[in-house]
Amino acid sequence: MVAKVRLFVEHPLAQGQTVPLERDQAHYLFGVMRLGTGDEIALFNGRDGEWQAVVEAASKRGGVLRATAQSAPLHMPPDLWLLFAPIKKARTDFIVEKAAELGAARICPIGTDFTNSERIRQDRLQAHATEAAEQCGGTYVPEVAPLAKLDKVLAEWPSGRHLLFCDETARGAASDFTALPRGPWAIVIGPEGGFSPAERDRLRAHPAAHAVSLGPRILRADTAAVAALTLWQAALGDWS
Amino acid sequence: MVAKVRLFVEHPLAQGQTVPLERDQAHYLFGVMRLGTGDEIALFNGRDGEWQAVVEAASKRGGVLRATAQSAPLHMPPDLWLLFAPIKKARTDFIVEKAAELGAARICPIGTDFTNSERIRQDRLQAHATEAAEQCGGTYVPEVAPLAKLDKVLAEWPSGRHLLFCDETARGAASDFTALPRGPWAIVIGPEGGFSPAERDRLRAHPAAHAVSLGPRILRADTAAVAALTLWQAALGDWS
Repeated sequence: MVAKVRLFVEHPLAQGQTVPLERDQAHYLFGVMRLGTGDEIALFNGRDGEWQAVVEAASKRGGVLRATAQSAPLHMPPDLWLLFAPIKKARTDFIVEKAAELGAARICPIGTDFTNSERIRQDRLQAHATEAAEQCGGTYVPEVAPLAKLDKVLAEWPSGRHLLFCDETARGAASDFTALPRGPWAIVIGPEGGFSPAERDRLRAHPAAHAVSLGPRILRADTAAVAALTLWQAALGDWS
Repeated sequence: MVAKVRLFVEHPLAQGQTVPLERDQAHYLFGVMRLGTGDEIALFNGRDGEWQAVVEAASKRGGVLRATAQSAPLHMPPDLWLLFAPIKKARTDFIVEKAAELGAARICPIGTDFTNSERIRQDRLQAHATEAAEQCGGTYVPEVAPLAKLDKVLAEWPSGRHLLFCDETARGAASDFTALPRGPWAIVIGPEGGFSPAERDRLRAHPAAHAVSLGPRILRADTAAVAALTLWQAALGDWS
């Protein structure tokens, strides 16, 4: 089973459209994936759906593709953001990959009281989201936002957007996601050590917040992110 | 926030029970975690719940703990198995960790037509499951079964156990897990390249099988495992 190579490009895609390749794209397609002139690949740009394309020219430093036919329409994810507190590199990468795979529209790293990392490699996380979209057959790549402090994010919270708060200390919290209102949402996941008591109080008191339970076990932050995205998608998103 | 150290032991646990430590346990507690005589830790053995214990003796090569009081009853997971096809080391480790965290009772690596790995390190995977239970506050450690061929597993399928088959090619498959029957279950997840057409036919035709959909995107095997475990637990397991 050789899966067709899928590539995210910035360029517009349309019937007969030529797409020039940058150096790193040429290296990936012709050096790593061993494609050559006449080979087929699939392209998407987050706006025009998925397009079949053929390699028209290939060199070490560049190349040209030509789009031949649209193979899938644009499939936008539901209006769901994932807010998470990045800590360890491997688990941060994992959360971004899974959020893209599971169909989050926007990925927002947040700084919290128990988060040590003062900065993130936004470009690297964005590349992870793009690669996940390439792998999972997506036609859309969620944007990775700059790191922002949770306090500031909550103070400037957009009107009308619900906030799903996975509260592992609230045993009585709802676990039935189908009872939640429809509309734009954000899921917020704390760091490995949890939110601080002050943050927890602020989240609980926030007018947009809905507390939910993710079962009787303590989940790691990355597991909680995947579980919450899954339950939201199945109940309120595009899985049903 | 210093979380209390939790340790899985084989030894029976009861009021006043002394627990001798093996060399690697002593190294972990006294070398890595820097515990000493009089310090408290939490113990569980998969049978007697969680117990508070104190360090009575500590040396480089061993030590003795004494159980003082039960701090949590045994919480058995629901009767849910996870069957998965191990391929890449990191993602295999991840699936085992997440299955333990999410409350699977048994983890069964399976060999499939598109699985290359002929053998697994069962002891290493079992250690991952144990560590995940230690981390997530579990009082039970799921058993990691030996690698078995999918064909053989299906041919000898235990009577009365339902089989959840995540069929990414069946667009019409159910996504409402609450409509599934109650009882013992197993979730089966294919390898990264999917099941072979022959395997897919065999799974579809199996009398215990229920096909479900995990949404419109193609999920990686590890994501599919976490998503299916989550939806099952929320609908039929111990999350509600």
